[in-house]
Amino acid sequence: MSEVESFFKSAFSVDNVIFGFDGGDLKVLLIQRGAAPYKGKWALPGDLVYPNEDLDTAAERVLEQLTGLRGVYLEQVKAFGAVDRHPLGRVITIAYFSLIKISDYTVTPASFAQSAKWHAVNKVVELAFDHNEILDSCLRRLRRKVRMTPIGFELLPPKFTLTELQHLYEAILIQPKDKKGKNGNKGIDKRNFRKKILSTNLLHDLNEVQEGVAHRPAKLYQFDRSKYEQLVAEGYSFDI
Amino acid sequence: MSEVESFFKSAFSVDNVIFGFDGGDLKVLLIQRGAAPYKGKWALPGDLVYPNEDLDTAAERVLEQLTGLRGVYLEQVKAFGAVDRHPLGRVITIAYFSLIKISDYTVTPASFAQSAKWHAVNKVVELAFDHNEILDSCLRRLRRKVRMTPIGFELLPPKFTLTELQHLYEAILIQPKDKKGKNGNKGIDKRNFRKKILSTNLLHDLNEVQEGVAHRPAKLYQFDRSKYEQLVAEGYSFDI
Repeated sequence: MSEVESFFKSAFSVDNVIFGFDGGDLKVLLIQRGAAPYKGKWALPGDLVYPNEDLDTAAERVLEQLTGLRGVYLEQVKAFGAVDRHPLGRVITIAYFSLIKISDYTVTPASFAQSAKWHAVNKVVELAFDHNEILDSCLRRLRRKVRMTPIGFELLPPKFTLTELQHLYEAILIQPKDKKGKNGNKGIDKRNFRKKILSTNLLHDLNEVQEGVAHRPAKLYQFDRSKYEQLVAEGYSFDI
Repeated sequence: MSEVESFFKSAFSVDNVIFGFDGGDLKVLLIQRGAAPYKGKWALPGDLVYPNEDLDTAAERVLEQLTGLRGVYLEQVKAFGAVDRHPLGRVITIAYFSLIKISDYTVTPASFAQSAKWHAVNKVVELAFDHNEILDSCLRRLRRKVRMTPIGFELLPPKFTLTELQHLYEAILIQPKDKKGKNGNKGIDKRNFRKKILSTNLLHDLNEVQEGVAHRPAKLYQFDRSKYEQLVAEGYSFDI
């Protein structure tokens, strides 16, 4: 065996951190492993990449097999390649994240989809492999991303109130306190949030209010995507 | 051969985008390939990852073998894994970037270091493999990074003028016009830049001026790292 051949003994996989939102907590879609290694443990959905498959294609395949969704925004976050991370041999995994509306999700017939379940991000237990570390990395990326690009609006109904929008940002950005009560972020200040979000000029005031609510109906807004794209072309950066 | 074994036929490498600054242009360190494939072409320095080596360790090894530098900031940017990107077989590469002062760099005895040369980032020719694409990704990451964290200060002398600092930001952030004169960024507005950078409160005014210059000597500043770390701990974000 030549020196070069000895390097061609690795495999690589993709792992998908699929974040979901349903108006409550930020959630992540996990599967329960049916076979060794880590049988019975919760894990991120993923798969080995086929020899003739590009990385992004593999990540899209896993997402579609699991959720039935195509054309969802997927972003590569990081490669994880610790020497001993996989018991079967040297396996590098490339982590991707996506963000979907939980109401768009349906359980697909794929066998691994049958064991899939949404877990609140803040209450995830010990996962198989290095998947807790991968989840943490993707969560940090999502938190940065949602402050710098308006990806969050995809998760709301087309017409939303400022309170619904604030809940979304809180679900993504607020970290719970640890057991010692440290490192917890407080909720977002309502007045500051409204001022900041309205000053982006990206919310279109519909001059409509909520219907059928018990409390005083709130104003409804719409995200102005075409204006956002125009502003970005002019060098604007979104920053919340 | 089992189904799983058929996946263990890939290799992976690291490629390092080493950006350098010497007070003039932003540069990148390239090596001229001495052997096939792409013999004679310029390429990013990189290597196959050893079976018992972590990804970050491999990237640090390549950097040290090439530049003699240890403990330099290295950041993983992206995995590149197009099916046909390497003529020897399926090779995924993990791209890293680092940023060094060119004056800290010395040619090391490593054989591949002998063919290394700094190239102005804006004038890089066609590189081997998918290395132009990798360089572009790392350049975008560097541009974002330098606006969000004060990594640029590492590249200046300990005492610097605001003009030197502005030149650094211009070298990194300004894209040249393409042949049709489109997409070029203008220089940074001096008044805005000074206002913005001083408002970070991270520059310590040394109450000293330049010595031995022909023009009117400018004030000297120092970056206040401990204050920056304190502010970050309080939730501050750097943004230029």
